[in-house]
Amino acid sequence: MAKDKKMVTAITSMDEDFAQWYTDICKKAELVEYTSVKGCMVIRPYGYAIWENIQHILDSMFKATGHENVCMPMFIPESLLQKEKDHVEGFAPEVAWVTHGGNEKLEERLCVRPTSETLFCEHYANIVHSYRDLPKLYNQWVSVVRWEKTTRPFLRSREFLWQEGHTIHATAQEAIEETERMLNVYAQFCEESLAMPVVKGKKTDSDKFAGAVSTYAIEALMHDGKALQAGTSHYFGDGFAKAFGIEYTDKDNKRVLPHQTSWGVTTRLIGAVIMTHGDNNGLVLPPAVAPVQAVIIPIAQHKEGVLDKAAELLEKLKSLGIRVKMDDSENSPGWKFSEYEMKGVPVRIEIGPKDIEAGQCVIACRYNGEKITASLDDFAEKVKDLLDNDIPKGMLAKALENQHRRTYACTTLDEITKSLEENGDGFIKAMWCGEEACEDAVKEKTGVGSRCIPFDQEQLSDKCVCCGKPAKHMVIWGKAY
Amino acid sequence: MAKDKKMVTAITSMDEDFAQWYTDICKKAELVEYTSVKGCMVIRPYGYAIWENIQHILDSMFKATGHENVCMPMFIPESLLQKEKDHVEGFAPEVAWVTHGGNEKLEERLCVRPTSETLFCEHYANIVHSYRDLPKLYNQWVSVVRWEKTTRPFLRSREFLWQEGHTIHATAQEAIEETERMLNVYAQFCEESLAMPVVKGKKTDSDKFAGAVSTYAIEALMHDGKALQAGTSHYFGDGFAKAFGIEYTDKDNKRVLPHQTSWGVTTRLIGAVIMTHGDNNGLVLPPAVAPVQAVIIPIAQHKEGVLDKAAELLEKLKSLGIRVKMDDSENSPGWKFSEYEMKGVPVRIEIGPKDIEAGQCVIACRYNGEKITASLDDFAEKVKDLLDNDIPKGMLAKALENQHRRTYACTTLDEITKSLEENGDGFIKAMWCGEEACEDAVKEKTGVGSRCIPFDQEQLSDKCVCCGKPAKHMVIWGKAY
Repeated sequence: MAKDKKMVTAITSMDEDFAQWYTDICKKAELVEYTSVKGCMVIRPYGYAIWENIQHILDSMFKATGHENVCMPMFIPESLLQKEKDHVEGFAPEVAWVTHGGNEKLEERLCVRPTSETLFCEHYANIVHSYRDLPKLYNQWVSVVRWEKTTRPFLRSREFLWQEGHTIHATAQEAIEETERMLNVYAQFCEESLAMPVVKGKKTDSDKFAGAVSTYAIEALMHDGKALQAGTSHYFGDGFAKAFGIEYTDKDNKRVLPHQTSWGVTTRLIGAVIMTHGDNNGLVLPPAVAPVQAVIIPIAQHKEGVLDKAAELLEKLKSLGIRVKMDDSENSPGWKFSEYEMKGVPVRIEIGPKDIEAGQCVIACRYNGEKITASLDDFAEKVKDLLDNDIPKGMLAKALENQHRRTYACTTLDEITKSLEENGDGFIKAMWCGEEACEDAVKEKTGVGSRCIPFDQEQLSDKCVCCGKPAKHMVIWGKAY
Repeated sequence: MAKDKKMVTAITSMDEDFAQWYTDICKKAELVEYTSVKGCMVIRPYGYAIWENIQHILDSMFKATGHENVCMPMFIPESLLQKEKDHVEGFAPEVAWVTHGGNEKLEERLCVRPTSETLFCEHYANIVHSYRDLPKLYNQWVSVVRWEKTTRPFLRSREFLWQEGHTIHATAQEAIEETERMLNVYAQFCEESLAMPVVKGKKTDSDKFAGAVSTYAIEALMHDGKALQAGTSHYFGDGFAKAFGIEYTDKDNKRVLPHQTSWGVTTRLIGAVIMTHGDNNGLVLPPAVAPVQAVIIPIAQHKEGVLDKAAELLEKLKSLGIRVKMDDSENSPGWKFSEYEMKGVPVRIEIGPKDIEAGQCVIACRYNGEKITASLDDFAEKVKDLLDNDIPKGMLAKALENQHRRTYACTTLDEITKSLEENGDGFIKAMWCGEEACEDAVKEKTGVGSRCIPFDQEQLSDKCVCCGKPAKHMVIWGKAY
């Protein structure tokens, strides 16, 4: 029991210090390790396996919606980055510059891609000539670099892994549809595979991607009441096409400008999972992305027949396609319980001499701690059903309940301030006139910024929460990661 | 027919200009496109899909042999790169240096990883403490950068995609076994999935990886008689462990040094496939890595029933898990034949009104041009069998025959010179005393360098081909990519 206790108390309580709780989980669940490169990390096997599962599911969704994977260079010549004015202004201050190759100084310095719009545009200019060449629906899985000052594992790092979708279309309408389609794909993925509810909406103009006409985002609420932008989808109009000289010949033989989009999610999603589902015993993983979905812990494993029976259970679960492992190491069952709780394994199966005698085993669910006793005849189907249905649904419902409970409607700045004092952080719903000055004033006076203009609008009042003039939109405000 | 002809004559004949033939295929089969970043390329969807298939198969083989994927940062601080003397000497002259982050000059410059031994060593030093922590069997799929002067798509580029395996073991013996195991995995993959025969062997000391005790390699013979190093596996002994202060406590409670390996293959394998199987009509892809394994071409598709029947065939092949597409575009059948020959699709299926009447279709194999007529009752099983068995075996046999035909045993330098004059390039087998001076002299006098000391040794004579002193090894010599 001493060992158990050590495991459990080894992480900081989230109520005591949320940031430290987060870092503790990243380290103790063996997701990441720091390196001597400031702001860059090693993603360890357990953390990377989560990312591989995320990639696998999302990649299927991208391919099912007609996208193809490609790979662009990691370097962008300075002159290429500068072609689109807003884009370079947004990114140049935070890129890493390569100035030397071997012992020679480069004629033109290259930045390590912070994002790849400019490279895709250069490529489109080479391959898009006629309406027959459109649309191009591309994606790439790579890492990008942004020279952040303060960094945290998964949430903000100088190098991070992501996918970036880049598409080019004949018409504005098609491109806008694509922008929305991919935001919906992200939202569906977050809810179905990460059991994480998100609010879909549009960013205000001050919060748009550098070079975009409009940016859509999905916003999720973390355990500490802060908002996390979990994915973005950008509509570019024809701005990049103009800047890069991309034109095509349409059916009427006229030269016209195509319309573009880009969209991305990053390893930040792993941070979102930690802060949406984790608890004081560690990580809690949704089954769809858990590297190990079920762990079998033999009880009194030295007794005759226990390990054999546990091995039988293992094979049964494997045969149903479940990612399962058995831990028959010398550690105590209690130590093992804590270990796999820390690692967020969705289901634990206990099997000991008494269980075997009774023809049953115990199934414990990580996310709610519930234990059920199942007959050995159909325990495997039961586990599969838990992993496929009950657990993801239960986790989503729990997270959604938390989001609803911590969403507060306010009609004045005083109400916002009061809500923050009384309820702590959360999503604040309040009306907005559409003026950037009011957006800034809300931030300055209350500390919360606009997260997004949700697609699902409500008419809370007809006045702007700040200036009292006619309101145009309901906005979700909050503190952000 | 004019269009057909244009497609076919659009690539240079390989006998006329092999290098141009290669480049033509890369472009016309839409594998790559150049960019404004010298020596870096866009890998286009069709090229990237080949790489995805390679990754998928190899990754399964790595996991089946107990390896886990991780992800290290792309940057290496200069001081970290310098810790192992041989390693930094080998790589420092060809790395790209990041000197600025945003607008600030970095205190210490960072190189973009040319390979990641140093990062893995730093990580091992953090996580390896006891014999219980060993072995660690890691791999990562990333891109690396080496500032090459002359570049060619897939074969030599400044940035290339690869996997790098890195492992650390308690004993030298375990590490040596790992080095050999992974070379065998590579050889098996090349023969089974790429239908490409390889020679397994050890590199001479002058050709070892910077920092390695020994380097093993697989060497393949290209159509033009040049050798291509298709994969390498390195045994490091405890040199890196010493340099990075990695120690562990063994079972007797003593502090000892662990032993390491690394091994890698790159997108170069795609170049190898082009130059092993390609012909004057374009690419020829082995079925295991072909993005499209079979293409259905309806003949006289405007006639009633043709497209319906073709769609039926498509569904049948899909149901067997075959990557298949139907081309019912407006282009002529002849144009389509050329197009899919250029793209190296292993099997073409033709179906027209007469075939339907006769209850049959025509199956054409890309690699040997053979056509067979198959009954519609069992054509799908026939296609599957071709893709799984006959085609890969036939392609391997053809490539192996070519390799054997172009391997020449020589006992004197004059014989080497004569063979090169009479037979052109190829693998030259000749004995060697083991002295670097002789290795250099062979290169200088005949133009061929040592490729490897094959594991399968033959005693061609008892004298060194160069100095006439007692021979230690049979070496394969050749010109290399």
